[in-house]
Amino acid sequence: MRLHCFGESGNAYKVALMLNLTGADWEAVPVGFFGGATRTPEFRALNAMGEVPVLEDGAVTLSQSGAILDYLAEKTGRFGGRDADARREVLRWLLFDAHKLSGLAGPLRFNMNFLPEARRSAEINGWLAGRLAAALKVLEAHLEGRDWIAGPEATLADFACCGYLFYEEPFTFARAEWPAIDAWLGRLEALPGWAHPYDLMPRAFPPKEET
Amino acid sequence: MRLHCFGESGNAYKVALMLNLTGADWEAVPVGFFGGATRTPEFRALNAMGEVPVLEDGAVTLSQSGAILDYLAEKTGRFGGRDADARREVLRWLLFDAHKLSGLAGPLRFNMNFLPEARRSAEINGWLAGRLAAALKVLEAHLEGRDWIAGPEATLADFACCGYLFYEEPFTFARAEWPAIDAWLGRLEALPGWAHPYDLMPRAFPPKEET
Repeated sequence: MRLHCFGESGNAYKVALMLNLTGADWEAVPVGFFGGATRTPEFRALNAMGEVPVLEDGAVTLSQSGAILDYLAEKTGRFGGRDADARREVLRWLLFDAHKLSGLAGPLRFNMNFLPEARRSAEINGWLAGRLAAALKVLEAHLEGRDWIAGPEATLADFACCGYLFYEEPFTFARAEWPAIDAWLGRLEALPGWAHPYDLMPRAFPPKEET
Repeated sequence: MRLHCFGESGNAYKVALMLNLTGADWEAVPVGFFGGATRTPEFRALNAMGEVPVLEDGAVTLSQSGAILDYLAEKTGRFGGRDADARREVLRWLLFDAHKLSGLAGPLRFNMNFLPEARRSAEINGWLAGRLAAALKVLEAHLEGRDWIAGPEATLADFACCGYLFYEEPFTFARAEWPAIDAWLGRLEALPGWAHPYDLMPRAFPPKEET
């Protein structure tokens, strides 16, 4: 399998992590995101949504990290949830993550670290940080007294929600301030096959000079 | 079935529309969102994520519009996609919608119409509008030459992506500027059982005086 990705993408990390945890045979195809690679016609032909990650598995080409995770769960029989109720709870958290957690942490981290300083906006970033904190509060409360997000074992919901939370670049999230999230991230780190995003995927920042 | 909702919520509308299209026996339970009802302990006990919609169906209580749509598709055997490929394509667009379409249109429309004028930020709204336009461009291109988003017939993907697009309040979206989206919204309006959000759910704005 080939995963089009770059190290700084927490959305790509969700899939890279699942591939590594399931011992899949896969390779990372580097995407020069910061040089504009996802805006090229070639990339748009691969994924009209213009986003990383994209997974290629034989005749299957798939985008949207949550949909790829679902595909891999079906393919491997792992981490998808044990029954219909667990699978629906997984879906609920995949959607929450896309909307409120990774969907805010991604842009905020981008704005605070990878955007040229002259274009950074304290007002926009403050708005994003407020909304992200509200989502982290929901996750923190959910994880108090639970080991995993959806059911008694690790699932796709955990891999999705942790997408941006192992990165060191500042984006107003500090593990120490969220004890239940911190402990849960520790449980993820202890899973056989866990690795940090930068150890699974090549970094794309800063962009190389175009040739 | 009972749907906790309010008319201004495009996320609740997705579910109300599906319920109406399938001829379900349901009632709207009004949520006083603008008076802070989703922040009360009572509502948080119903949905720890603190969001509308919430569906109650006998012993089942479910939140996240995409997960509720999936539940209703399973329950009714309708609009979920004909096979595994269509169902995964549906999921792909549910996630895209949560992240990039309704996930941006919702806050932008809120900021531009329901937030007190003194708290409105041109900078934040401009940022949201730019990202929303990029998502609409992806949807427009996808719908050129297609009647429906995921496969040959209407699915949950259509009901999710249209969530905010029938509202008249300004949020930088104008149907006339997006011909493929405009035609697709027309096809949705022609489905037996289609209705405008304000005809399906009670409005919550402006909030009534608390008693």
